[in-house]
Formats: sequence, C-alpha cells, structure tokens
Amino acid sequence: MKAGVIGATGYAGAELVRLLSSHPDVDDLVLSSVSFEGGRIEDVYPGFLGRVSFPLVKAADVVAASDVVFSALPHGIGEQHAKDCMARGVPFIDLSADFRFGGDEATFSAWYGKPYQHPELHGHSVYGLPEMNRERARELAGSGKVIIGNPGCYPTAAALGAFPAIAKGLAARNAVIIVDAASGVSGGGREPSRSFHYPECADSVSPYKVGAHRHTPEIARTFGAMAAAPEAAPAVIFTPHLVPMNRGILGTIYVPLSEGWRVSELGESSGKAARPPSGEIEAMAAAIHAVYADFYRDEPFVRVLPLGAVSATNRVRNSNYCDVSVHLDNSGSTLIVVSAIDNMVKGAAGQAVQNMNIIFGFDESAGLEMIPLLF
Amino acid sequence: MKAGVIGATGYAGAELVRLLSSHPDVDDLVLSSVSFEGGRIEDVYPGFLGRVSFPLVKAADVVAASDVVFSALPHGIGEQHAKDCMARGVPFIDLSADFRFGGDEATFSAWYGKPYQHPELHGHSVYGLPEMNRERARELAGSGKVIIGNPGCYPTAAALGAFPAIAKGLAARNAVIIVDAASGVSGGGREPSRSFHYPECADSVSPYKVGAHRHTPEIARTFGAMAAAPEAAPAVIFTPHLVPMNRGILGTIYVPLSEGWRVSELGESSGKAARPPSGEIEAMAAAIHAVYADFYRDEPFVRVLPLGAVSATNRVRNSNYCDVSVHLDNSGSTLIVVSAIDNMVKGAAGQAVQNMNIIFGFDESAGLEMIPLLF
Amino acid sequence: MKAGVIGATGYAGAELVRLLSSHPDVDDLVLSSVSFEGGRIEDVYPGFLGRVSFPLVKAADVVAASDVVFSALPHGIGEQHAKDCMARGVPFIDLSADFRFGGDEATFSAWYGKPYQHPELHGHSVYGLPEMNRERARELAGSGKVIIGNPGCYPTAAALGAFPAIAKGLAARNAVIIVDAASGVSGGGREPSRSFHYPECADSVSPYKVGAHRHTPEIARTFGAMAAAPEAAPAVIFTPHLVPMNRGILGTIYVPLSEGWRVSELGESSGKAARPPSGEIEAMAAAIHAVYADFYRDEPFVRVLPLGAVSATNRVRNSNYCDVSVHLDNSGSTLIVVSAIDNMVKGAAGQAVQNMNIIFGFDESAGLEMIPLLF
Amino acid sequence: MKAGVIGATGYAGAELVRLLSSHPDVDDLVLSSVSFEGGRIEDVYPGFLGRVSFPLVKAADVVAASDVVFSALPHGIGEQHAKDCMARGVPFIDLSADFRFGGDEATFSAWYGKPYQHPELHGHSVYGLPEMNRERARELAGSGKVIIGNPGCYPTAAALGAFPAIAKGLAARNAVIIVDAASGVSGGGREPSRSFHYPECADSVSPYKVGAHRHTPEIARTFGAMAAAPEAAPAVIFTPHLVPMNRGILGTIYVPLSEGWRVSELGESSGKAARPPSGEIEAMAAAIHAVYADFYRDEPFVRVLPLGAVSATNRVRNSNYCDVSVHLDNSGSTLIVVSAIDNMVKGAAGQAVQNMNIIFGFDESAGLEMIPLLF
Repeated sequence: MKAGVIGATGYAGAELVRLLSSHPDVDDLVLSSVSFEGGRIEDVYPGFLGRVSFPLVKAADVVAASDVVFSALPHGIGEQHAKDCMARGVPFIDLSADFRFGGDEATFSAWYGKPYQHPELHGHSVYGLPEMNRERARELAGSGKVIIGNPGCYPTAAALGAFPAIAKGLAARNAVIIVDAASGVSGGGREPSRSFHYPECADSVSPYKVGAHRHTPEIARTFGAMAAAPEAAPAVIFTPHLVPMNRGILGTIYVPLSEGWRVSELGESSGKAARPPSGEIEAMAAAIHAVYADFYRDEPFVRVLPLGAVSATNRVRNSNYCDVSVHLDNSGSTLIVVSAIDNMVKGAAGQAVQNMNIIFGFDESAGLEMIPLLF
Repeated sequence: MKAGVIGATGYAGAELVRLLSSHPDVDDLVLSSVSFEGGRIEDVYPGFLGRVSFPLVKAADVVAASDVVFSALPHGIGEQHAKDCMARGVPFIDLSADFRFGGDEATFSAWYGKPYQHPELHGHSVYGLPEMNRERARELAGSGKVIIGNPGCYPTAAALGAFPAIAKGLAARNAVIIVDAASGVSGGGREPSRSFHYPECADSVSPYKVGAHRHTPEIARTFGAMAAAPEAAPAVIFTPHLVPMNRGILGTIYVPLSEGWRVSELGESSGKAARPPSGEIEAMAAAIHAVYADFYRDEPFVRVLPLGAVSATNRVRNSNYCDVSVHLDNSGSTLIVVSAIDNMVKGAAGQAVQNMNIIFGFDESAGLEMIPLLF
Repeated sequence: MKAGVIGATGYAGAELVRLLSSHPDVDDLVLSSVSFEGGRIEDVYPGFLGRVSFPLVKAADVVAASDVVFSALPHGIGEQHAKDCMARGVPFIDLSADFRFGGDEATFSAWYGKPYQHPELHGHSVYGLPEMNRERARELAGSGKVIIGNPGCYPTAAALGAFPAIAKGLAARNAVIIVDAASGVSGGGREPSRSFHYPECADSVSPYKVGAHRHTPEIARTFGAMAAAPEAAPAVIFTPHLVPMNRGILGTIYVPLSEGWRVSELGESSGKAARPPSGEIEAMAAAIHAVYADFYRDEPFVRVLPLGAVSATNRVRNSNYCDVSVHLDNSGSTLIVVSAIDNMVKGAAGQAVQNMNIIFGFDESAGLEMIPLLF
Repeated sequence: MKAGVIGATGYAGAELVRLLSSHPDVDDLVLSSVSFEGGRIEDVYPGFLGRVSFPLVKAADVVAASDVVFSALPHGIGEQHAKDCMARGVPFIDLSADFRFGGDEATFSAWYGKPYQHPELHGHSVYGLPEMNRERARELAGSGKVIIGNPGCYPTAAALGAFPAIAKGLAARNAVIIVDAASGVSGGGREPSRSFHYPECADSVSPYKVGAHRHTPEIARTFGAMAAAPEAAPAVIFTPHLVPMNRGILGTIYVPLSEGWRVSELGESSGKAARPPSGEIEAMAAAIHAVYADFYRDEPFVRVLPLGAVSATNRVRNSNYCDVSVHLDNSGSTLIVVSAIDNMVKGAAGQAVQNMNIIFGFDESAGLEMIPLLF
C-alpha cells in the first residue's frame, strides 16, 4: 500500500509523513511539494534524518502512483487532484476546507471567496469527523469514489465537545453556543509572518479574526447536522485565540441548557449576587457527565474525563485523543464543555489517518497508538 | 511621605515595592514579610540589588510607621491591620478580596468561607476601580477614614471591558454576560506548586475552577453596580484559563446586545448557515466603538483601540493600561469585547498606586508612566 | 516478560512507563511509588487515561514480580533493591548515580556525600552507555548478574559528543575539555520548587551549580575511559544552564585539538585580530567530520549531521537519538562539537530501555522507534 | 533637545524611541523608517498608542532636524549619515557595526564583506563601551566631532564579564578565552524568518554560526584593548546560542587563570578523577571576587553579584544593568564569569542612551533608571 501526500512540506503535510512512516499498513510514500520540488523531505525537516527519506516530486506524480492521496494544500486549489483521484478510483483525503461543506457552495464561496471548480465532485465527499460520519465514509468507499473533507482543527474540538449536548437534547432548542478557543502557533503553518514571529507572540495571548473566522460556518454546519431536526439547530459564536505553545487546541464551549437539564433559567440570576455551585448543580453536572460518558463509550479517540477533572492540551500532546470535560456554570443554566486536542494530530494529520483507516477497513487506531507525551 | 507594604515578598507586594521605589511622591518605604522577617527585600528579589534595599519587619511596624499602608496579604487575615490604620487615620489599600464586597458579608463568606472580623470597617471602604469609583474614594479620603478594596485582576479586565456596554444600555436587560479569560502564571503567586511547575504548565493551556472561581461574585457585583437599575443587572458566567506567559490578563467578553444595538436577535441565526459579517454589522460595530471611545475619552489608563485592532497582553506589558477592543459576532447579536491588562500592574500593584494617587491628590498617573514593553 | 519500575511517578519513571507500555517485548508492568502507594499511575498522570492503567505497589513487590527492574529513585537509596534483584537473577537498571562509578567509591562519596551500602555489588555493574559498553553489558548479562548504571542526561550528551575526538586522538593529550550545556526544565524532576516555578524560569536563562555539579566526575570518568591510555585522559570543566523549554539537553563541547588535527596552535591567534574561517579550516573540519561519521556509522541512535548543519534539541524531541554536529573555531585550534538529546529519552528512560534491549537480546531499537516530533 | 532616530521601526530603533520618550533631557523626537515612511510609529507599534506619536520621515530629515542622531540601520549603509552629522557638528551614535572597529578596515571588511565608504570618519569614532571608553567619548565630544560605535549585544556581555580579569592580570597571558553565550529571540530583529518563526525556535535551544559569528572580531578587539600590552592580548572563541525567550543575553566566559591566581595548572587534573571544589578554591574565588567588586565599584550599571549568586537574564530584564557573577571551575585553573544583560537595553538602546548622556554631560543614568522587571 502506497500513500501519497500532496503538499508534504507544510506542517500538516510533514506531520502526515511522520505518522504514515510508522503506519503498519503503509509500505511506501510518495510526496510532493511546490516549494521544494526536486529536493528531499529530510532536507526540509532535518529531524527526519536517517529515518524518513523521500524525494519531493510533482503533485501529478503523487496522484498517479498512490493507493490513497492526502492533500495538504491551501484552500481552493486541490479539486483537480480530487477529480483525478476519482478517475483512478483512489480515495482522496483533503485537509483543506474545499470538501468540508458537502456541496453547500454558497456558504463555501461566501467565506472563501471563490466558487467550486468541480461542483459535481462534492456528492462523493463526506465531512470526515469519524465520530459522526464513519458509516457514510465506509459507504462512499464501498461505492469506489470517496473524498474526505478532513475537518479543521477548531471545528474538530468544537464538534466533539458539543456533540452529545446537541444530539441528546441537552442544548436548548435554537441555542446560541459560544465556542471560545485557543490554538498553538503551529496552527498558523510553516510560513514565517509577523504574527507568528517569536517575539511577537511569545509571552502573550490575543484573539484574532474576532467574529469573522472561516471556521465559523464549518462549526455551524456541523452543529446543525447534530441537531434532532434542522429547525432546532443552534447558532454559533466562535472566537479563536493565539497562545504561546507549539501544539494544541483548547475549546471552551458554552451551551445554554434545555429545560429539564438546567437548574435555573438562563438569566435568572441576573441582578442577584452570585452564589457558589449548589449540591443541586453538582448533581445535574453528574447527570450530564453520565450522558457524555455513555455517548462516547465506544469511541477509541474521545476520552470523557472523570467529573471534576479539566481538559488541558498537554494531556493529549502528540496523540490522536480528544479529551472532553463537562462542567456547569454556578447558576446551573449553562453547560461548559472543555475539549482539548493536538491540533496537528486529531486536528489534522491524525484524523486524516483515522479516516484512511476507516476507508480501507484497517483497525481504526492503526498508526495512531501514541500515548500522550506527558511533559 | 512614607509608604508601607505588608506582605512585601509575594509577587504583588514586590511589584508594589518596585513601583513605589520610582514614585515621585514617595520618599521612603517600610516593608513587612512573614516568611522572610528579619531579612532584606533585595535578598529575596536579587533583581533589586543596588537599587532597592529595605529590611523586612513586622506588619505592626509597617502600620505604625507609614502614611499609607498597602496590604498584599492572602484573603481573610488583614482586617486587623485595616482597623489599626483607621485608628491612626492612615489610608489602607488592600489587595486581597477582604474589602471588595462593600459590606456584603453574605456573599464574601459564601465564597471565601469565613465571616468578616470587623464588619463595621466596611462602611469606610470602596471598591477601588478608579474608572467607577474615584469620586467615592476621594470622599472617603476627605472623611479621614478610607479603605480601598483593590480589585482582583480578572474583575479589573472584566469590568473595564463591559462598563460602557452595561452603563450605556448596549447590553440587553438582564443579559447573561460570559467572561472567558486567560491569565499569565504570575497570577498564581510566588509559592511553588504542581500547577505552576514549569513542565506542567509550559506549552499548554487549560481552564481551572470552571464555574466556581471566587472572582465570579466580584465581577457580578461590579456589573450590577454599573447597571442603570439594580433589577436590570446582568448575570455573569466566568471561566479563567492558565496560559504559558509570565504576565497579563486577557478577557474575552460576550455581551448580548439590547434592541436598537443589535442587528439580529440572539438565536435568530440558529439553524441557518453562518454568513460573514455584513456591512450592516460593520456599521453597528462602528457605532458601538464610538460609544466606547466617548465613554473612556478622559481616562488616563483605558485605551479604546481603533476599530479593527484587537487587544493583546503584550501591548500593555509592564504598563498600567487596560486596552479595550470592540467587535461584533457575525450575526450581529452579540458584542465581543476584548480587554487586556498587565495582571501585576493594572491588575494589582499599579491600580493600588493609582488609588493612592487619587486618595492623596497626586497626579493620577504619578509613578505609573511606564510605556508598555514592546517585545 | 514483565518489567518493573521502582519510583514510577517521578518524571523519569513515568517516561519509562510510557515507553515500556509500547514496547513489543514487554507484556506487563508492575510499578511502585512511595508518594502515591495505593493509588494508580493514571491518576497521577491523567494523560495515561484509557491507555496505561496500573496500581502503585511497594518497591519490594516490584522486585519480587519482575523479569527486569528499572529503578528511578533518587541517589543513594536503591542499592538494596539491586542486591535483591541479583539474588533473584533479575537485571537491575538504575537511573540514579549509584552505579555509574564502577566501584570508585571515593569519587562517588566525595560528590554524593555517602558511602556505598553494598560495595560488592559494583563488580556486577557497567556504565550503561551502549555506544561504549554494550559488549560489557552483554557479558554481565551472560553471567546472570547485571546492574546497569544508566548514564546521567548531561554525561550522555557530553560523552557522545566527545567520544570520537578522544578515542581517535583528535583531542590533544591531557586536554581540558569544556562542556557548556543546557537542559530543559523537566530535568529538574516533578517536585515543585522555586527554581522551576514557571515565573522564575520562563523567559530567562541562567547557569547553576557552576564548577560544582555532580555530573562533572561522571563526565570526567567517562572521558578517561575513552582515552587511549589512562595517563592521556583529558580534564573536564562542566557548566549546566537552565533553559525555558520542557525537554532536551544541548551540549556545546570545546575540544583542544592535537597536533595534526589543528590548523593553528591553541593561543596562536592571541593578540591578533580575529579572521573568518579559512579554506584550510574548512578542509580540516571536513576531515574531522569524516572521522565522526565513520565512528558512528553503525550506531542506531547517534546521527552525525551533515557538515554545516547544527544540532538542536527540537530535532530529537521525543526520540532516542543523539544528534552530533562538528565545527571548528575560527582559528582552527579547537573542535566545537554540539550534541543534542531528549533528556527524558536518550538522557534517561529511552537509554534505559536500550540497555534492557541489549541485555535481553532484543532488537536494540525495539520500543524506541519514535521519529522526532518536528514542531 | 531634539533626538533623531534613523531606522526607528526595527526592534533596536523602537526600543530607543521608548527610552528616549521618557528621558528627562529629551524634548522631542524625529524618526525615520524606510519600510514605513509616511506612516506613524504608533501604527507600527500599537503598544505606543496614546503615549508615543510621531510621523516617520526620511533619514535626511532626521539628520537635518536633530541635536543628536541615533542610527539603527543594518550594517554598511549608514556612514553617509555620519558624515552629514559631522558636517553639522551633531553627535552620531551608530548601533550598527560600522564604527566598532576604530578604523581597522581590514578586519571590518573581512567579516562584513564591504569596505568603508568614508575611512576618514573613523578617526572621530570611539567604541562606545562606557566602562572602557567614556573619557575618550568626552574628549571627542569636546572636539565637536564624535561618532559612537555602539557595541554589539554579545560583545557587551563578553567585555564586561572579562574586563577585570584581563585588565588586572587574572587571565593568563595569551589565554584563549571561550565565550559561550545565549540570546533571546528579539536579538534577531523584527523581520520574520524561518529561524525565528515561533514553532521553529520555541521549546528548543541551538547554537548558530558556530566558529563564524561576526561578533567574534569585535570581542577579540575589545579583549585586546583591555590587555596590559598588545602582545599579551588573549584569543577568543565565541559560540552564540538561540534560547526561547524574548530578551536577554547571557555570557558564560571561561578564562584560564594566570599563575598566582590559579590553584592548579590548566590540565593538571587531566587523567584524574574530578574532585569537588576545595576550601583553597573557595578562598581563591573570594579573592577574585574582591578584584571584580573593586574594579566595578563606581560603575552605575555593572553589578558584581555576591559570591555564590549566579547571573540570570531575568534579573536584569528591562534594565540597563549588566550583572556579573564569578566562579572557579572545580580544579581551580579556570575562572568562569557569567554576565547577563537585557540585549535591547544595555545590549543596544540603553547603552546608546548612556553614550548620549556621556557626550552631553547629562547624568549618566538619566532615562535609564528602570528597576529590573522581576517576573
């Protein structure tokens, strides 16, 4: 089995190369890079020295030679490769946003500023969040044509944090869910820029693209798909922050609770002195925790933390896990879910490999058994 | 003029010493420390070598010898010093939470687990957020008895971010305001612990005390005091995060807008595809920005950033500024305010000095003219 | 095969648990902890959740139940466990300094302040630097009694950097070799202290224990063992620095060159203007590089970088590699070797596993195939 | 008094603007920038908002309008501005390397690859290390023509660390002094690049330009000027490292001691087991410490730490201090000096202001009274 990576010298591409190099079912790799075509991957990433050694060829050569193609190109330029893969009957796993909207071209073009090049392809695509869509991915694979729109890093953390709340009716109908999230700097990619220049982002924290980040429609769409009925879908407000760390996404997600799951009405405590969490609130938190624990019982990569523990990015570093912890605010009106992933693994390359495993019928954890780096 | 600092060897105390040592109206310092009594401040903080040199005496000696007393003790143990200062007619500026609740002992004891020792003292106290209460501080000073409850770091960032929105009616009546905030590790103080051990918090981000942090009632009380009427006061949900940086607080504050200030109803976009911000939303953001800029026009230490800019902690590092930026979510229903302070300056020692300046009639900026450290 | 870890909740112990949990030849683990006896490893290290789950028992129970025992205790308290293992015929791999001195009790006690408890044991021990002593380790294993004195983190980086220079006569006879080194904070262990409190060590660099660090005699002894004759052995000056990073050791090693390998005499450029490196110097650097490349040609975990490249700790992060780069100073009198390891892997737990592999005849790389984490 | 800054938008230039804005003897600033000409400094550095506000003009306009000109341009392009300043009788303080070689054009061009444009100017220049050359700077100022070659950051730390040892004969005649140094990332300037991209340099340490850094000849020349006689001058080996911190230079300097100051011969301990420092060594360390303390007794910005303390960059952060600690290696043959500065203050802008103060007869500490930021 030969796996191809288009755009292998960006951070997501290189992480794919690292993971695929240790995958038990992958025998060989073929890699492309526009920036370093003609060079070798180990010269671009000296950490690979003596372990990973491949030439960097053209994208077309990757498509022609591979049994599965991963594309880690920027948004809006990879559809042709997907088309070529479909023609060859080769699965295409796309880490860009191009295939994350299930053919909703209006939303895609509103946020990404360009139309689809090949709208007909999108019928073969599925949003590659395995916890939601692994069955659909298998179906498409069975059809001989499958394109995976591998989820964005923030949307992965948001979706896995909110999924049980929305699907199980904990979230109030038509709730406004606030996703306040933080990312490590590797999320900005390999190209140097002012924003990611060490002295500009070290020892500081700041949000960016407030109210206007492109992951907003992806999160909204995913939340909508989780709702019992389209008309019950929540709205989303999303704010990303840059944090001085290399890897990791943390999502702090505020979900207004539906009647039956809340101790007080939203806003009921307005104008009153705040009180510490009551026993009633703690009991409801335990009930909600039980829903979460049950929901993810069989998932290999989602860990619902024991009640009282809090997710942290350094508990999932260099692993494919998404840690989820559940909490209630002190008035008992709002569920606060904290989800943590490694943005380069479950948030990008690891999830792509997980999708490959699903498509090909490998053990879903194959090549993804890394235990988190503890410190 | 002789300034005293009780608890001078904790981080907040030492920062006070640093600032007071450069203050033009302060001639001498007298410092106490329980842990290092009998030692010298420059031995505890070698950075002071050759510049700041004082013995560490008993707290009672500080009270007896000073024209103003700053107390940087833990919560719940400083009221007796305040009482002694009142007896001497000496202003008492308390950096603990003891005097932040204006005599609302029920709320204090519910969150801090102990009653007031001297309830009668609290009538002489004011919550020392100058932008709200400098007139009251002056009145008390004129009365000869003044105790400043110097605000907490998170509540300072929250209050200055939300103040115009609440006071000017931008916030919906009885809104639930979410304060999602991040702190540098110096906020945890000087005592080593597992949580603040370098390998445990570097290169990671995580929230803590979710739904149960003691700054929640302080923020709620301050928000309530800002409202036009007590019964219109908002509720608050507060989540603090620990970020791997030395200094700084960032608050990302979600304020549901009142009719007239919002472009769409809260939740109106539920179940629909998210759209990029429209021109209508940009126009409303500009209108709200104008309210903020006007509100803080004469404040020496609040900087409303130009529309489009975003607050960051490294823009206020080592200064007494609070930077505030205003944004709308992409549906136009919610105001997102980002406020940034240096937790040790405007969030602690600098604000305490600002309060001293107010009480004594000094230039409010005296000793606080530091230009932010740029990188 | 059942592996035991005594002291499993310190950083080195936990890293051992992480590595052994993925080792193909290890079927089960048995772990002890003084601090957390009666608890479970996954409660102490939540990152293990769902993957690594063992009770924490007494050290004696580890010795009784294991086919190999790793000891990650502090110095000076583990010899009895070694004795018990020898009695059972079980290999003992000690990560403390107790067995690093080959029975030279005078040196050990001069630096560690205590005598050996069981001097007779040391005849069964070998300094566990595989690149020097793997044959001796195998011999001892064949004898049925083997104790590995697993090298310290700094000494590993120093030894692998200087080995070819000393063994191949590049270093001047009786040279003074300066080892200027830097460590990540995990090297200080898991116990919180002022020195490793985040705000005290972040955003700063400083040496410690200058001229008096306990790794000095270990390095000196190892350098001596590398020399062609005992009387030709070099002296060593060693200075460790603390750097704000989680993992890694970097050694910058200054080796005065012997005649034939140097372009100018040491000190010949004194009193003259410095000149950029000449072609003659570049040619000599290439010759020395060839010696290094040849020396380590068959080593699985030492990578001699291409001439012109420089070792960095982030090229070996989470791997068992030691990267070595060679350089000449601009006068051509001194070889500058830069060696980089992950202090927790090749500098501690990884090397211990490598020693286990050698003793048991496993593939020397078994369980240590991690490709460095690139970013 | 109007101060001009050419190249005001680089890090050194911006730091000059920050310091000069608070200088009691500077009334106005005039700033230039090639990259941002026509813009304003507060737009490039938003931290200046509300405090520092100046247009960015052409360099020629700075020269024409200023009473003193600071040049923070890259090497090799500022001599014409110096010439114009001399014609106007205005002091020129150059932060580039152009005037650091006292007219030794051969050395300059060997390392910087270009000849002087105006060799005749260099007779008016002095190497601006005040602790060595303040008298010469005053003489030149008195002559009406003065150019300051403001020292590099590494050379400042190296020079102040080694000065007493060389000048007072502690260093062996013709010694080879090794300067092993580390810098924060701000030393790399404001332009984004791969080397200073956050994920490439965070959580890692590495040397660079080993044996070939341009500060080598500057250090060698300064060391030579310190020696009692030119023919007794030491040689230097210099290795810089990049450390993940924003600011700071740390120099660890190895000085072979002369007879009378050493306890053992260099290399005498070769081939022997290393011993802990003896009482004899501690006594010699105290004697050397006394020489250092006496040497710098009257210097306002050099602090010789108490014996036993170790310099650290976070003890001098945001100050103009150079901290110096002295140590002996455990054989008593080599002095190890550790010097720490803030690379942007004493290593660049602060030292430039100190030179201005000297030239103009201001208090040498004017505008430089910052107490180090403690955490």
